[in-house]
Amino acid sequence: MKKNAFFAQSGGPTCVINSSLRGVIEAAREFNNIGTVYGASHGIEGVLKEELLDLSAQPEDEIALLRYTPVAGSVGTCRYKLKSHQQQDFERVIEVLKAHNVGYFLYNGGNDSMDTANKIAQLARQRGLDLQAVGVPKTIDNDVGDSEFKLIDHTPGYGSTAKYWLHTVQYANEENKGSCPADPVLVLQAMGRKIGFIPAAARLADPKRKLPLLIYLAESPRSLAELADQVNDMVKQAGRCVVVISEGFNVGDVGAVKDSFGHTSFSASQMTVAQIVINFLNQKGLAAKGAARCNVPGTDQRHSMGYASAVDLDEAYRLGQKAMELAATGQGGFMSTILRDRGGTAGFIYSVGYDKVPLELVANSERTFPAKWIAESGCDVTDDFVRYARPLVGEDMLSLPMIGGRQRMTQFRPLFAEKKLADYVPEADRK
Amino acid sequence: MKKNAFFAQSGGPTCVINSSLRGVIEAAREFNNIGTVYGASHGIEGVLKEELLDLSAQPEDEIALLRYTPVAGSVGTCRYKLKSHQQQDFERVIEVLKAHNVGYFLYNGGNDSMDTANKIAQLARQRGLDLQAVGVPKTIDNDVGDSEFKLIDHTPGYGSTAKYWLHTVQYANEENKGSCPADPVLVLQAMGRKIGFIPAAARLADPKRKLPLLIYLAESPRSLAELADQVNDMVKQAGRCVVVISEGFNVGDVGAVKDSFGHTSFSASQMTVAQIVINFLNQKGLAAKGAARCNVPGTDQRHSMGYASAVDLDEAYRLGQKAMELAATGQGGFMSTILRDRGGTAGFIYSVGYDKVPLELVANSERTFPAKWIAESGCDVTDDFVRYARPLVGEDMLSLPMIGGRQRMTQFRPLFAEKKLADYVPEADRK
Repeated sequence: MKKNAFFAQSGGPTCVINSSLRGVIEAAREFNNIGTVYGASHGIEGVLKEELLDLSAQPEDEIALLRYTPVAGSVGTCRYKLKSHQQQDFERVIEVLKAHNVGYFLYNGGNDSMDTANKIAQLARQRGLDLQAVGVPKTIDNDVGDSEFKLIDHTPGYGSTAKYWLHTVQYANEENKGSCPADPVLVLQAMGRKIGFIPAAARLADPKRKLPLLIYLAESPRSLAELADQVNDMVKQAGRCVVVISEGFNVGDVGAVKDSFGHTSFSASQMTVAQIVINFLNQKGLAAKGAARCNVPGTDQRHSMGYASAVDLDEAYRLGQKAMELAATGQGGFMSTILRDRGGTAGFIYSVGYDKVPLELVANSERTFPAKWIAESGCDVTDDFVRYARPLVGEDMLSLPMIGGRQRMTQFRPLFAEKKLADYVPEADRK
Repeated sequence: MKKNAFFAQSGGPTCVINSSLRGVIEAAREFNNIGTVYGASHGIEGVLKEELLDLSAQPEDEIALLRYTPVAGSVGTCRYKLKSHQQQDFERVIEVLKAHNVGYFLYNGGNDSMDTANKIAQLARQRGLDLQAVGVPKTIDNDVGDSEFKLIDHTPGYGSTAKYWLHTVQYANEENKGSCPADPVLVLQAMGRKIGFIPAAARLADPKRKLPLLIYLAESPRSLAELADQVNDMVKQAGRCVVVISEGFNVGDVGAVKDSFGHTSFSASQMTVAQIVINFLNQKGLAAKGAARCNVPGTDQRHSMGYASAVDLDEAYRLGQKAMELAATGQGGFMSTILRDRGGTAGFIYSVGYDKVPLELVANSERTFPAKWIAESGCDVTDDFVRYARPLVGEDMLSLPMIGGRQRMTQFRPLFAEKKLADYVPEADRK
């Protein structure tokens, strides 16, 4: 008997999030027991509000174009947290699942989302609903799973953001080299809140350490005065310096704004780390004429499709396929995962496999950036990190489909499921 | 009799500045009267310090790779202003020209640089030196020449920055559409100080005005309260809003830092316009839940090579060739220029020609953004602007040469001319 499927996204999007969606939609066609695949408009908010986009009815070309369409505009994401005490919300989810004859629930997100998916599955079971809840991993931060890389090797989205930084630092170095008589210091602010995989990727631009590049992770704190000394030492030595610094590097109060998960939204803060750093440098004075300047690329890091990694796109697609396969074959309660084959004689041949890992394990795990990958100087990462991250960015540039001088991206038709329930205001949205 | 040539760059670089350099080097081979082409390391500073890179001796492949190598790392630029009273500097320039048997001086820059090139040519003549001084136009701001587009249609570098904004707004719209329940307003800060061609290019992403996009030029001032009202009107109407705003939009004091030309260096200021705008919006409150956030891409706008325009690269190359042709054929005192053919029945077929324009005319002209291209709302530009700018971004993505997962860019060998004069400290650098 066919049952329908819900697909929902949560949290910050990536360049490859739509590839996982495409994997889900295309894999569903392989199974007789999957009816219609619905995309919940803006994630769990769309489930609560019964706003359900019919993905099975979309034109095939639009689905194929998901490969080249970054971030979450096609179905939408949210930062709505289903907190344990929001019992009405949980019951409403079950109601909506029942109303639309849903047997499969696929949730794309990070550790928090795996926890939510797990709770929904448990409640569904209590309410007599046979629901296969499956997670799809996603985050540019690469913070899903464990620090030993046993639950998952890396998260889809990270490889593309790493490739963005590879290019950005290559270009920023040319900029800084060319303009250093006036602008000897260029500071670039990287996403990643408290985990350093994103700023660390700057090292991929310069694996042999030929550039005057300093990398500051949130995990390797120091005072502004110490940072300024390291920058000025580099300016004295090389005449210039490129700094990549985490948005979460502690420089004191930035007037942080928090989202509903309690996470800091640094792009909405009253001040940025990079701004505080260049203000400090310019006030203290540089070891060369000219001023320090900064770039704060923000969301560009997760949607600059021209620099996306083809490897990352392929893997994200397959993790979507795998998640649908798990759901359709009755393997609910798991997240699809990607594991690196560490076999072989010397272990340097990049090879991955797709598998499953219990939602509960992921929900209760926390990945940190391995301390042994931070260089002794505190402003660099090690060759072991480079060996880990290098295969994720691939070899080539992506070819983007252009029409009329603009990029052709997915344009889904507004085919929504008929509403079967009364209107509902999500608990956290009530005044 | 062969004489040598100097090539120097001034001011902010672009994605295509090296294409003009390549045009100069390759065109020099066509003329028997051109000896060695030297690149002045960091522009006029390199002339003053007699730091002269031998460009004629560089490997052909490295010269060819200039097409794909953004900004000014290969030869270097500066913001050193040769002010009229710096007589010692001017005399030093003449000395260095004489010492290296230079008969051709090519200066790549904006209006200020054309003025400098003209002054050097005049002084050289007074000192009995037969010097052909020729300008090469360059600036992402598109502010070289006149407002009637008769001296030059557009400046190399602008088309690539316009294409950067076309992509950036397409992606930012997907980001904003997908994430609007948490982040309904995304503010992007564009370069261009006081002239609006760069933020205006955001309209190329959405020529039919289907997106919730507001564009604020420095030329169309309004109070933060008025801006917030327009943003909130859009949020009420569309549920979200993407704002592109000039770094030079007047929001009060940003703690500006000035360069030696007296121009504000917004990337080095103590605060950014985008930050002030989102702080105001978040404090005042949005017409939807969630917060406003901002991106300040900074120098990325002039070096993100993945989004460079092939049309712009070709034109920059030819303007370099043309400049060398002018010099070699004794037509000093001119800037090479690009003019659009406005002929044809309806004038919509893009066609350009390469010509010359007197340095003096360019030096004394100032381009402004045509007032008639600003929409009545004050937060948009007109279709006439789109018709002007659309051909400059071309049709396709560039294919970048990748090696080992990184981009292969020009790596010049450090082949410097032997110094023939005593060391010299530029006047403005003396304590």
